[in-house]
Amino acid sequence: MSVYTTVTPEELKAWLTQYSLGTLIEFQGIAAGIENTNYFVTTSHGRYVLTLFERMAEASLPFYIHLMAHLASHGIPCPQPIASLDNRYLNPLKGKPACIVTRLDGAPDMQPGPDHCAQVGEMLADLHLAGKSYGISLANPRGPHWWRKTARAVMPKLDSAAQALLTEELRFQALYRFEDLPRGVIHADLFRDNVLFEGARLSGVIDFYFACNDAWLYDLAITVNDWCLTEDCTVDAARVQAMLGSYSARRPLTAIEKGAWPVMLRAAALRFWLSRLYDLHFPRPGEVTHAKDPRHFQRVLENHIRQEAELRRHWVV
Amino acid sequence: MSVYTTVTPEELKAWLTQYSLGTLIEFQGIAAGIENTNYFVTTSHGRYVLTLFERMAEASLPFYIHLMAHLASHGIPCPQPIASLDNRYLNPLKGKPACIVTRLDGAPDMQPGPDHCAQVGEMLADLHLAGKSYGISLANPRGPHWWRKTARAVMPKLDSAAQALLTEELRFQALYRFEDLPRGVIHADLFRDNVLFEGARLSGVIDFYFACNDAWLYDLAITVNDWCLTEDCTVDAARVQAMLGSYSARRPLTAIEKGAWPVMLRAAALRFWLSRLYDLHFPRPGEVTHAKDPRHFQRVLENHIRQEAELRRHWVV
Repeated sequence: MSVYTTVTPEELKAWLTQYSLGTLIEFQGIAAGIENTNYFVTTSHGRYVLTLFERMAEASLPFYIHLMAHLASHGIPCPQPIASLDNRYLNPLKGKPACIVTRLDGAPDMQPGPDHCAQVGEMLADLHLAGKSYGISLANPRGPHWWRKTARAVMPKLDSAAQALLTEELRFQALYRFEDLPRGVIHADLFRDNVLFEGARLSGVIDFYFACNDAWLYDLAITVNDWCLTEDCTVDAARVQAMLGSYSARRPLTAIEKGAWPVMLRAAALRFWLSRLYDLHFPRPGEVTHAKDPRHFQRVLENHIRQEAELRRHWVV
Repeated sequence: MSVYTTVTPEELKAWLTQYSLGTLIEFQGIAAGIENTNYFVTTSHGRYVLTLFERMAEASLPFYIHLMAHLASHGIPCPQPIASLDNRYLNPLKGKPACIVTRLDGAPDMQPGPDHCAQVGEMLADLHLAGKSYGISLANPRGPHWWRKTARAVMPKLDSAAQALLTEELRFQALYRFEDLPRGVIHADLFRDNVLFEGARLSGVIDFYFACNDAWLYDLAITVNDWCLTEDCTVDAARVQAMLGSYSARRPLTAIEKGAWPVMLRAAALRFWLSRLYDLHFPRPGEVTHAKDPRHFQRVLENHIRQEAELRRHWVV
């Protein structure tokens, strides 16, 4: 359950008087999400999501919120932050920074086919292109520095095979310079549960709270690592071709990017392996654990290492 | 027919490469509207309206377009302009200034009841409040100066009764100072065909190309003069009470505004009587006439004059 802060109808009505959103009709807490308190809110003007930020660094909130506004105004179907009468996106509620954004129609599809992947690839390319004119930047807080710090913390918890894999992967990744790759705003968490479909049509992209500036190719690798996997954690040819084909139709990749593709898929697997290890072994105090199994991304990483030749062929077809 | 400029699929596809709107699926010309060329456009990201501005003053376009963006970001369900990759809302197409905005669901309801009017009143108040933080202003190009100029042009075309009515109304209106009334951004054309409903729920407000800065009460009078009339062109008590009640629940009126109400209803009727007279007697060269019958607003004005006592009671209940 993720409603950390309870809001009463009276409190919400009073807060909404700062907005031009009409009259409150109903609202209810949302169980999903582990970082913030979220409510679905319906007013006479439409359907919205209210978020109270429980523990995110307040200094980085404007990056996320203005990014959603920027992308929405560029045709990316993402939540649009609503400004209050005095033109602020963030207004405190129950002592927490809070914002209200439009609620998108649709639902995640956890069994995507090639057509879903093609739509996601095109949308991700458009998101990257639209982000070029965004005026704020935020370094990736989960980049190589964070990998090494997190690896030191979790290493004692691992068996010797996992320790060897992690040590070797950090050494391998240190040989590569992400800085040579085209970069800009990335979503950084475009998993299946963060994309909505109405029927077969992509209707929304949500959860921009991991967005940052990094290599575009890294974002594509994160996305492929979730959308295009078979049950045995290898990459499915039909889905990855659909996703890479539609992505590169919109933003053609450079030769350097194509060469870096297997490295990037491994880097993306490493990042989520590490965060899941950390969440499992260092749960936050008082938290009902939502930790997901880290072994999933360990297997993805192992398969990527073993199948480097196959990964390299994604860009040959 | 209002497609003055024909756009081919190739031209539209080329134009859309400046945007992050995905792939063109289909488009078709829209017959409605007399000032601009409009197309419905569907891309892989959603449904939009493309507008080529045929004859509007280019200098005033940013006021309208940024206003829609401002109101949309404040929760008013209006078309949201889409920015191109280099952050521009206006990009030339076939040599005309052009923009693309989100297409709203819903359709006008030309037989509104009190509940529709209540929703419109609340939305108009929220539109006025949201406009307070808008940073651009545009004087009303159809204010008292334009009334007098237009009256001089159409006067020779009128019968003696209409001449007397027009002369007397201009004299009457000249006694009042609109400047004393609370003012801000107004829609200035919130007729029934510019509000969309999905079922019984207000889903959109469109056509901001008469928006400007003027007295808020004048905007409310324009709206009442279209939404709340009976077949004999008098004000229907149930609908006007619903609209004024919901408007003033959101933005309470001042004593000066309540006193000015009958004057304002007459001013709003005068403005549309004049523009319809002008459009009828001075059609633009080459134009298939869309002129509406001016006598409608002449009757509205005559009834308002005769029923001043009833109009004054709108604010007593």
